[in-house]
Amino acid sequence: MSTFIPQQRTLMGPGPSDVSARVLNALARPTLGHLDPQFIELMDQTGDLLRYAFNTQNSLTMSISAPGSAGMEACIVNLIEPGDTVVVCINGVFGMRMKENVTRCGGTAIVIESEWGEQTSPEELENVLQANDNVKAVAFVHAETSTGVRNDAQRLCAIAKQHGCLTIVDAVTSLGGIELNIDEWQIDACYSGSQKCLSCVPGLSPVTFSETALEVIRNRQHPVQSWFLDLNLILGYWGAGTKRAYHHTAPVNSIYALHESLLMLQEEGLENAFTRHKKVHELLREGLESIGLTFAVDEAYRLPQLNVILIPEGADDATVRGRLLNEFGLEIGAGLGKFAGKAWRIGLMGSACTPRNVHHCVESLRHVLA
Amino acid sequence: MSTFIPQQRTLMGPGPSDVSARVLNALARPTLGHLDPQFIELMDQTGDLLRYAFNTQNSLTMSISAPGSAGMEACIVNLIEPGDTVVVCINGVFGMRMKENVTRCGGTAIVIESEWGEQTSPEELENVLQANDNVKAVAFVHAETSTGVRNDAQRLCAIAKQHGCLTIVDAVTSLGGIELNIDEWQIDACYSGSQKCLSCVPGLSPVTFSETALEVIRNRQHPVQSWFLDLNLILGYWGAGTKRAYHHTAPVNSIYALHESLLMLQEEGLENAFTRHKKVHELLREGLESIGLTFAVDEAYRLPQLNVILIPEGADDATVRGRLLNEFGLEIGAGLGKFAGKAWRIGLMGSACTPRNVHHCVESLRHVLA
Repeated sequence: MSTFIPQQRTLMGPGPSDVSARVLNALARPTLGHLDPQFIELMDQTGDLLRYAFNTQNSLTMSISAPGSAGMEACIVNLIEPGDTVVVCINGVFGMRMKENVTRCGGTAIVIESEWGEQTSPEELENVLQANDNVKAVAFVHAETSTGVRNDAQRLCAIAKQHGCLTIVDAVTSLGGIELNIDEWQIDACYSGSQKCLSCVPGLSPVTFSETALEVIRNRQHPVQSWFLDLNLILGYWGAGTKRAYHHTAPVNSIYALHESLLMLQEEGLENAFTRHKKVHELLREGLESIGLTFAVDEAYRLPQLNVILIPEGADDATVRGRLLNEFGLEIGAGLGKFAGKAWRIGLMGSACTPRNVHHCVESLRHVLA
Repeated sequence: MSTFIPQQRTLMGPGPSDVSARVLNALARPTLGHLDPQFIELMDQTGDLLRYAFNTQNSLTMSISAPGSAGMEACIVNLIEPGDTVVVCINGVFGMRMKENVTRCGGTAIVIESEWGEQTSPEELENVLQANDNVKAVAFVHAETSTGVRNDAQRLCAIAKQHGCLTIVDAVTSLGGIELNIDEWQIDACYSGSQKCLSCVPGLSPVTFSETALEVIRNRQHPVQSWFLDLNLILGYWGAGTKRAYHHTAPVNSIYALHESLLMLQEEGLENAFTRHKKVHELLREGLESIGLTFAVDEAYRLPQLNVILIPEGADDATVRGRLLNEFGLEIGAGLGKFAGKAWRIGLMGSACTPRNVHHCVESLRHVLA
């Protein structure tokens, strides 16, 4: 065995997305102790940058030291207790995973299931909440990575709030790619991933919790079942202005990288980042349509950063993806769940969202599908 | 806010330890998709290298995508179910944390508590197991990072096995620094951390599980309460030879770094690494004694890689550590728990375990304490 030197790829799958040299350089800076004053200052700055990205004033805004699926679990295990009822909206893999998490902490999930490729219906949520008066929280995915659908987070949250429910939102693929307003939309708990539109290395999950959520966590009847994800403990470590209490050893270098990727987002500006994702998505749409490919999702709620395309008749899924990878160094994503073998997922996230990548992707596909 | 450029430190605390340029370079290589064939090959190689480090043939040997405390939780939530009884040996902070994890998954902990700075008594374990015949597992810390004590893992496991118990061992600070034989000692579940004697960046937790442990996990009555740490699911992702089933997005770059640090360990050879830790520890001991400092732990079970030193009378804990950091760029660890304010922890782990670091540490302390 010897030192691993990867062949470089263009990452246009569902994540990780291309990581810029600037972020990789930050990642490789000398490791500090996790209680070093320099690092504590960096944690504070990272919190501020995350508040910018999430568009929130929430003091509890930080990064869980594990991937997005641990961020999901952190939101659910801290807010849900045995016996609680949660409405979970499912229109893809990640909604299913939320339900699984609710069940594993002893909660009961009332499921609103929509077709793959369709949005969760706000009317259906309204009906379900009118029919059930003991619902503690409503959970849904903002940008479904498995289908490329944008759910109407603002409207779903407004309905949930009218019924006095907490709102738990998966923003793994939305953060930094499309509009997301934690405070204005009244999102109580939200998690994301470092490796999507932030174009940082995979392994971290930015999260944010409202004061309402914190109040619920502080007044729990049962201890949080996960020690590692217990916010009552993590707060002492990430909480601003307090003396840091050791909880776990933060992934120091990964946080250098997250800080750098968030700086880049701040420099570009959120609105500009959203516009870029939209524009580059339009370019991709034109290109894909020019070679006869079609989208699996209606234009009205299509995600610019995650394009789900129907595999054309006669094309062999694995062969095409294999050729793109081997002949062109291009990664696109396979279909997941019900879309396996039926769709491809083309990511345009963060640093990967450029006209150059679109041209490369469309021309490579044209060549391979010819 | 601007790009973060840390001032370089010498990391001689309880971890993270100094990370070599070679590992940092590996870390910064271009990110691959986590299902890229190149990366899957790297996961397989990393498994082999971890089997070498752990001295095991266990097929389930991999890295949890989160820090050591998540590794601890992974071992306990997968093996323990509500109603199970676990003997937890406590002689420091991390034993207490194991107990906390047992309780949070509905288990009952029978605690064997020893003084801080002392070993867990094998006789006491024998007595407790003779008095209780319903014990499912015995859990203890091999190298207590909070006290600098080595517990007699071989003997404690032998006793546990005579009573038909599973063995769960914390090897966060021992892996790569002192002898650890998973198979020979009959350890069923073991977790470590990347940032100690492996001198990789913090954020990963190598784990290994015996066939016996796997059998127990497969035959559980209740689902594992953590979705993120459920080995039944993770197995499909890391399991050798199988088609990879997506579970979470692996922290790709951190695994490049782990692979490189394990390669370095293999190149040096485990026995040579242990000898180096012993020899350099002797050099440190001589140096510290030459300036009048004394150890908190008896020589017979002192860890070479984590030296717990009594703070001399008249020295102010925070002032001394602050001056070491600011004047000499040297990080040593504060005391933890009962040792807070009473002891310092000087790490000699992995790449930080060199005569140069010892000289720097002793001379810096001589200067500051003068």
